[in-house]
Amino acid sequence: MEEKKSVSKATAVIPKRLLQVLAKERSDQTPIWLMRQAGRYLPEYRKVRAEAGSFLTLCYTPELAEEVTLQPIRRFGFDASILFSDILVVPDALGQTVGFKEGEGPVLDPITDLAGIAKLDLARVTDHLQPVYETVRRLKLSLPKETTLIGFAGAPWTVATYVVGGRGSPDQGAAKSWAYRAPDEFQKLIDLLVEATILHLSEQVEAGAEVLQIFDTWAGSLPEPAFRRFAIEPAKRIVSALKTRYPLVPIIGFPRGAGPLVTDYVRETGIQAVSLDTGMSLNWARDNVQPMVPLQGNLDPLLLVAGGKEMRAGVAYIMETLGNQPFIFNLGHGIVPQTPPDHVGELVELVRGFKA
Amino acid sequence: MEEKKSVSKATAVIPKRLLQVLAKERSDQTPIWLMRQAGRYLPEYRKVRAEAGSFLTLCYTPELAEEVTLQPIRRFGFDASILFSDILVVPDALGQTVGFKEGEGPVLDPITDLAGIAKLDLARVTDHLQPVYETVRRLKLSLPKETTLIGFAGAPWTVATYVVGGRGSPDQGAAKSWAYRAPDEFQKLIDLLVEATILHLSEQVEAGAEVLQIFDTWAGSLPEPAFRRFAIEPAKRIVSALKTRYPLVPIIGFPRGAGPLVTDYVRETGIQAVSLDTGMSLNWARDNVQPMVPLQGNLDPLLLVAGGKEMRAGVAYIMETLGNQPFIFNLGHGIVPQTPPDHVGELVELVRGFKA
Repeated sequence: MEEKKSVSKATAVIPKRLLQVLAKERSDQTPIWLMRQAGRYLPEYRKVRAEAGSFLTLCYTPELAEEVTLQPIRRFGFDASILFSDILVVPDALGQTVGFKEGEGPVLDPITDLAGIAKLDLARVTDHLQPVYETVRRLKLSLPKETTLIGFAGAPWTVATYVVGGRGSPDQGAAKSWAYRAPDEFQKLIDLLVEATILHLSEQVEAGAEVLQIFDTWAGSLPEPAFRRFAIEPAKRIVSALKTRYPLVPIIGFPRGAGPLVTDYVRETGIQAVSLDTGMSLNWARDNVQPMVPLQGNLDPLLLVAGGKEMRAGVAYIMETLGNQPFIFNLGHGIVPQTPPDHVGELVELVRGFKA
Repeated sequence: MEEKKSVSKATAVIPKRLLQVLAKERSDQTPIWLMRQAGRYLPEYRKVRAEAGSFLTLCYTPELAEEVTLQPIRRFGFDASILFSDILVVPDALGQTVGFKEGEGPVLDPITDLAGIAKLDLARVTDHLQPVYETVRRLKLSLPKETTLIGFAGAPWTVATYVVGGRGSPDQGAAKSWAYRAPDEFQKLIDLLVEATILHLSEQVEAGAEVLQIFDTWAGSLPEPAFRRFAIEPAKRIVSALKTRYPLVPIIGFPRGAGPLVTDYVRETGIQAVSLDTGMSLNWARDNVQPMVPLQGNLDPLLLVAGGKEMRAGVAYIMETLGNQPFIFNLGHGIVPQTPPDHVGELVELVRGFKA
C-alpha cells in the first residue's frame, strides 16, 4: 500500500493547466499568469535590471533574461511563464535604432517613408535575436514541469505605431497619418513586420515556446475598416504561417480595445484563445466569445494595486462570470510597477481557491 | 404665381435637422457637427484665444466664447453649434484650483481625500458659471435659425479623473486607486459631481440649450462592475433629473470606449442618442444600438487630417452603414489642431451629398 502510493506519486502526470484550457479540456484549477509578471514591481527584478545597465542588454543577455523570467515563477508558481523580452526587439533586429529611456519608455529613430523601410533588413532578424532564442532554450530546461512557456511578439500595427511615431503616443497619430495618407506605402511596413514576426515567433517555437501570444495593444483606436486591414489581416497571415509549421502550438490574441470586433478578430484570424482588456464586458464576452475560444483576462491592474475587498470582489466577478468555461486568469493589461508583491500572492491564492 | 412663390418662401419652415433626427424623424440630409469644432485648427480661433490670454478667461468672457462658438458655424454651416466651454469649469466652479498650461492641458490642484471633497462647494456652481450661461443666451440670439444649440458637461467619472489626478493620465490611475481603495469615499465625489452636473446642465437649458451632451471620455477603462457604478449610475441620475425638469430636451451620451457595454449604457441611462468612438464597430452598432436610439459618430479625427481618398472612403463607409437610420455625422473624438480647415469644408459637402 505504502509502496503503491509512492510509485503512483513518482509516475503521476503533472498537469499543464494552461495547455489543458487551450485544448478546451477541463483543468483541476483555473490557470493564472500575469502580463508583465517579470517586472519592476519585484525588488529582485530591479536588482538585475540595475546590473544589466540598459533594458535591451537585459533582453539580450540570456542568463539575465532567464533569471528575471524565473523570478515570478519562484515567488508565485504561476501556471505559465512568459519569456522576458519586448515587442520592440523586432524593429531593433530589423536595423532601426531603438532605445529605452528610464521613466520615459521606448525611443526609436522614427521611420516615416519608403526609404526608411528600405533600410530595414529582414535577413538580420533571427541572427540578431539569437540571444532571445537562447533564453527560451534555457527556460525550457529550468522551468518547473508544470509551467507552460509562452513566447510572444507585438502585432504589426502596434509595433508600427512605435516604428513610425518613435515613441508611445495617446492617439497613434504618426502611424495613422501615414496609413491614411499613403495606405499602400504603410502596407509595405506592415508586410515587413508580418514577415519579421513570423520569423521571430517560429524561432521561439523552435527553441521551446509551447504557446504564443500576439499583443495588439493599440488595435482599439483603429476605425473598423482599418482594424480589418491593419489588425485582423496581419494577424491572420501570422497565425496561418505559424499553423502551417506548428499546427499544435496554440496562439493567444490580444486585440486590446477591440470591443465587439473581438468576435470578428477571433473568427477571421484563427487564434486559439483571446485575451480581454480591462474594459471588456464579461457578460458579453461569455455569451459571444467564450463559445468560440477560451478567454483570458481581465482584472484591472489597478485593482491588483489596491488589493483588499475591491480586488477580491473583482476576482470573484471574473471567476463567477467566466470561470465555468475554458478560462485563463490574467490582468486586462500589464502589471504596474507600484503593485505590492503581496497582493499578487493573494491573487494567486484567490484564483486557486475557486474550483473550475 | 410669382407672388404665391414668394409668400411660400417667406413662411417656409426652416428644418432643424439635428432635432429631427433626435426625434427619430426623417431629415432631408444627415446633420453634421464636430466635437471641438470651435478650436485651435481655426486661425480665427487662435487669434481670439491669444487675445483672451488664459483659456479659462476665454471660457468665462461671454463675447469671446460666443465669438469662437460662432466661427465654425460661419465657415461650415454645421447643423449644430456646441457651446464653447470645458468640462473642467465644473470643478473650477466648485472651488478647486484649475489651470490650463499651453501644450500641456489642464492642471488641477488634486483632491485625494474627504477633506478635499469637503472644501468643494455646490452652492457656488451656478453663480460662478453665470458667464457660461450668458454665452448660451447670446448664442440663442446670434445663431442661424437652422442651427441647434448644444450644451454639455463632462460625466462625473471623467471629471473625477482630473479632479483626483490633477491632469490627464493614460490609465486614470489616481482616480481608480481611490475608487478601489475606498469606494464609499470616492462615491461622495461622484455624488457631488452628479449634483453639480445637474445644476450646470439645467442652467444651460434655462439659458437656451436645445440638446445636451454628456462626455464620458474615460469610461472605457473601467471594468464592468465599476462601469456600472461610476459611468452608468451617475449618468442615469443626471438624465433622470434633467428629464423630470425638461422632458423634451434630448440628451446625447458619449461613453467613449465602452464597447459592447454601450447597449447597457443606453438602456439604463435613458439617453436619447449615443455618440460612438472611432474604434466602435459600425456593423455591430447598426444591428445592436441603432434600433434603440439614433447614433452619432464616428470618423477618425486623423482621417480628417489626412483628407483625400481615405477620408472619402471613411465617410462613405460610415454613411452607407449608418446613414439609412437615424444618424448624426460627427467625429469619433475631438477634432485635432493640425486639421486643415479645407478638409472640414470638404467633409461637410461629402456628408450633405449623401441623401438620407
